[in-house]
Amino acid sequence: MITAKARAVDGPDKPFRAAEIKRRDLDLNDVLIEIKFAGICHSDIHTAHGEWGPVNYPLVPGHEIAGIVTAVGPNVTKYKIGDRVGVGCMVDSCGECENCRKGEEQFCHKGNIPTYAGVDKYGEPTQGGYSTHIVVTEDFVLGIPDSIELDKAAPLLCAGITTYSPLNHWGAGPGKKVAIIGMGGLGHMAVQIAHAMGAEVTVLSQSLKKKDDGLELGADHYYATSDPETFEKLASTFDLIINTVSAKINLDAYLGLLTLDGTLVNVGAPAEPLSLRVMNLIGHRRSFAGSLIGGIRETQEMLDFCAKHNIFPKIEVISADQIDEAYERVLASDVKYRFVIDISTM
Amino acid sequence: MITAKARAVDGPDKPFRAAEIKRRDLDLNDVLIEIKFAGICHSDIHTAHGEWGPVNYPLVPGHEIAGIVTAVGPNVTKYKIGDRVGVGCMVDSCGECENCRKGEEQFCHKGNIPTYAGVDKYGEPTQGGYSTHIVVTEDFVLGIPDSIELDKAAPLLCAGITTYSPLNHWGAGPGKKVAIIGMGGLGHMAVQIAHAMGAEVTVLSQSLKKKDDGLELGADHYYATSDPETFEKLASTFDLIINTVSAKINLDAYLGLLTLDGTLVNVGAPAEPLSLRVMNLIGHRRSFAGSLIGGIRETQEMLDFCAKHNIFPKIEVISADQIDEAYERVLASDVKYRFVIDISTM
Repeated sequence: MITAKARAVDGPDKPFRAAEIKRRDLDLNDVLIEIKFAGICHSDIHTAHGEWGPVNYPLVPGHEIAGIVTAVGPNVTKYKIGDRVGVGCMVDSCGECENCRKGEEQFCHKGNIPTYAGVDKYGEPTQGGYSTHIVVTEDFVLGIPDSIELDKAAPLLCAGITTYSPLNHWGAGPGKKVAIIGMGGLGHMAVQIAHAMGAEVTVLSQSLKKKDDGLELGADHYYATSDPETFEKLASTFDLIINTVSAKINLDAYLGLLTLDGTLVNVGAPAEPLSLRVMNLIGHRRSFAGSLIGGIRETQEMLDFCAKHNIFPKIEVISADQIDEAYERVLASDVKYRFVIDISTM
Repeated sequence: MITAKARAVDGPDKPFRAAEIKRRDLDLNDVLIEIKFAGICHSDIHTAHGEWGPVNYPLVPGHEIAGIVTAVGPNVTKYKIGDRVGVGCMVDSCGECENCRKGEEQFCHKGNIPTYAGVDKYGEPTQGGYSTHIVVTEDFVLGIPDSIELDKAAPLLCAGITTYSPLNHWGAGPGKKVAIIGMGGLGHMAVQIAHAMGAEVTVLSQSLKKKDDGLELGADHYYATSDPETFEKLASTFDLIINTVSAKINLDAYLGLLTLDGTLVNVGAPAEPLSLRVMNLIGHRRSFAGSLIGGIRETQEMLDFCAKHNIFPKIEVISADQIDEAYERVLASDVKYRFVIDISTM
């Protein structure tokens, strides 16, 4: 067993504390990664706080992981010691079901193994990236292109793929009008990716506070959703809307912004059900859809795309002692745009 | 002006009465149709009862119209006297907007002109097919193939196109598993069309009462939705579900039947909003969508498709005096599967 330093929580209301956790010895196809940076995702907070169901504490969150390979199992062919690699939201899947065979491991019929708060195929609880080391089977390890710094690579593994995948799946590109709801960790990635894909990009944010950033990242237009005129002016405009906001929204108001055959895709899920008027869909053959991260192949494609187009998250690097404070600031929307933990401070 | 006999209602709770209505003199591109048969659609009932908003009574419903051309305007090129023709849910549109130019007149930006309860470009209220004659601009007149009897052609103009269009748009065909919710006027058409397109067809009906009919019409499987096991057994099965039921359904239960990238399409709209859990979409990249009849070109394509594949509605022909009774029976689901008024009894 390998001992790793980590930061763990012991309950929904508990602060993070220094911990030691065990990582399994390398199996035939395993890669040992020395983690350099780990992003803080809103999902980490939901899970740590027990808001997404019961959690086996202590819990080490973190599924935006970037580091260096320091050892490989005897059958590993994809990576070697010294490689710059990443790990995202899942560390394994059945590999045999229809969806896994299609490369859509996130939709594995048996359920993918999440990077933390899951149970791996050895029956052990999975623990995430707020930690110095992690052991992952090579098929779920991503290669990080040389042009992407490791601290900036980390958030791509969740925020990047979560927005890249629906933009890619629903065909954002030249001639398409794409709106991004929310200018946070996910939204500021979606703007850059949609712009690089060639779409005309509009940000729909509560206020105009981050307008300069939005335009700098590639948005063509920026509107405040607190202004009711926004919804009149933009009625029936967009081919695709990516909703990065997990809070409950007025779905009918946003569906009204879709043009014929347009789709609104949620990448986050509010805890409560959403309601909508079906006539709002029928009148323009609109769709309301959901999307969940992306498969491993698509995640690698996303990393390569970001490298090619110089797309990086805007980050604020923090030390391991600042995680609790960072959580509070995320909840207060006081982050531009992603916190990344410098694991060397652990 | 042309005088036509008709059946009209004078208010939400009023019975039908014999009436005389005026049809405009033929404009340059107009076609005068002697109506032979008119189907009774659930929309007729909603509108006659004032359930879809205020109505200018007296109202003559009917948008499933089949008849014979008896006169044409001087510039008409598409039809001649004696032609067998049909009229569906719309009689005009702007013809200039993006959607009209695409042949999606049902989504005309200025609003298509509905066959009844609308206002035409001359400023006159439109009156529907429960009538001996109607005048319609040739672009909104459909040709009925010789192999389709006029009484059976009538329901195709709404029930047929309303189900054909989403099946066509979302790619029902070989290798696709398609479910039809509801085995009524629309459902029994959807089953035949999806089967003829090559899909594997499942009917999801409240009970098994119409199972024999469903299988005869081409369904491969038939399940009762009153049985909770249906939802367990069919979880994550269908690529496409067409919901022909306008009543409020448990949307989450039905969304759970969609496989990866599956779409549930509503062709009817309940008056109240529907609620759904977004996680239900995200977990399988599912979509919830709406569809509205079809464009004129697609409606002609549907008629030709039905002729080619011998697809006809099952109908019960009634006299003009039986409309009130037929409405009651539709509301009681006591019809197999569409009432058609024999206009010669008017």
